[in-house]
Amino acid sequence: MKLAVIQVSYSKDVNKHIAKKVKKASKKADLVILQELHQSPYFCITEDVKNFDFAQNFENDLKFWSEVAKENSVVLVTSLFEKRAEGLYHNTAFVFEKDGTVAGKYRKMHIPDDPAYYEKFYFTEGDLGFTPIDTSVGRLGVLICWDQWYPEAARLMAMAGAEILIYPTAIGFLDEEPIEEQRSQLQRWLTIQKSHAIANGIPVATANRIGFEPDPSNNFKGITFWGNSFILNAKGETVAQASEDGEEILYAEVTKDETREMRDIWPFFRDRRIEDYADLTKRWRD
Amino acid sequence: MKLAVIQVSYSKDVNKHIAKKVKKASKKADLVILQELHQSPYFCITEDVKNFDFAQNFENDLKFWSEVAKENSVVLVTSLFEKRAEGLYHNTAFVFEKDGTVAGKYRKMHIPDDPAYYEKFYFTEGDLGFTPIDTSVGRLGVLICWDQWYPEAARLMAMAGAEILIYPTAIGFLDEEPIEEQRSQLQRWLTIQKSHAIANGIPVATANRIGFEPDPSNNFKGITFWGNSFILNAKGETVAQASEDGEEILYAEVTKDETREMRDIWPFFRDRRIEDYADLTKRWRD
Repeated sequence: MKLAVIQVSYSKDVNKHIAKKVKKASKKADLVILQELHQSPYFCITEDVKNFDFAQNFENDLKFWSEVAKENSVVLVTSLFEKRAEGLYHNTAFVFEKDGTVAGKYRKMHIPDDPAYYEKFYFTEGDLGFTPIDTSVGRLGVLICWDQWYPEAARLMAMAGAEILIYPTAIGFLDEEPIEEQRSQLQRWLTIQKSHAIANGIPVATANRIGFEPDPSNNFKGITFWGNSFILNAKGETVAQASEDGEEILYAEVTKDETREMRDIWPFFRDRRIEDYADLTKRWRD
Repeated sequence: MKLAVIQVSYSKDVNKHIAKKVKKASKKADLVILQELHQSPYFCITEDVKNFDFAQNFENDLKFWSEVAKENSVVLVTSLFEKRAEGLYHNTAFVFEKDGTVAGKYRKMHIPDDPAYYEKFYFTEGDLGFTPIDTSVGRLGVLICWDQWYPEAARLMAMAGAEILIYPTAIGFLDEEPIEEQRSQLQRWLTIQKSHAIANGIPVATANRIGFEPDPSNNFKGITFWGNSFILNAKGETVAQASEDGEEILYAEVTKDETREMRDIWPFFRDRRIEDYADLTKRWRD
């Protein structure tokens, strides 16, 4: 599986801008991965009904990215603001086949809501479960951003045969936070995702945005998205990693052999104590 | 909670040697943590019925460590070869209260079995579940070695109110493996345990052994245990880490405030999609 991860900042003609990058990436990759909500600024920085406007052309958005996939003959992982009905929206990754058809979609299951990331206002929790998407390049375990923090999500995708975990992401530094805390957050983010590769013996690819985006409500100065998009092999080793502030395309090739090698020598799936895991479906063990 | 982690190599008078270290550690700590199977060499390097001899004085072992805890007035996490009945043994962490009474025990749930770590020959899987142990210094989520690789185990302990995860461990380099693979394994081991701190917002303390131990059966040259015992805070940051080959006592203080701070700003437990986690109790999703 030859893949590319595209890291960009938000700008006005972002769709055309990204389409050009996909064209370039498709020369060397069969699978191209875009960052979370790549069509718009990260509007969840504040709660404003006007931002639902970003979902009003959803049907056209689908057509646009379908065309991009088809023109470049790549499997394309997009991250869209899905309008399902009036007043019902999802944060959804649509995966397009090389011929432009929809291979499948994943609706973000874990929805965050903390200062400057007010996603519970905009998105209904996904109702499609943790189901990988079959494509011509392999079975993709597509998850989105906040899902990154949940070992349960990674495990369920791996157990359903996902050959790779893919995380479109929008995460960054809040200027208001102390610099040490900012650096610590970045390390935590890298570490937790490496752990999913290690625990499950599969590669991980994450596309994050870069650039400063101001808070229009002036509650906060804004978010400086921290980039650092990366690709890990099945041992959780970094095979490609982007800078913190530059537009980049990462390339890597991952194979099923890596997964086999990793799982055969450290067979974690062999020894799971499933008869004692029932309480994982509880909220708390009290 | 003031804790100490003791890292030693195996030697003949190991019990007396460790007892001295506990005495020293107890001057600065209320909780002292020992490495896996600290009374013996890591005998699981080969399958030999003679090694069950290491469990034949189990009742005396309990008395010995009970005395050590009582004399030094510390909560002591030990890791013993428990003889439960003829032909029925466990890899068990006994936790002693400051007065020498048994605060509780944890029987290793996930039992490894791979070249030079033939634990399935010696140990029956634990039957006490993932249950933290209440002590005068706090509720301890004691797990053992191979459990380290399972996010499920860490999660279940955290959900049962564990204030810290504790891993007595025996892991090292097999000389037969390429050096890059050896270094990669060490990184994976550090990373997966950091991820448990991060995912659950609790500190982690791990005691690993050091030193070369030969394989008496000559199947392998032996294992060089890689030390690197460590203590992490609730953000998964390393607050103390031992060398790869030296005897050391690590000290740190961890507080419940760290857990609260971490969980309040990144409230992962708030958003778990428990209604979609049922398949975690399956072997595989096929």
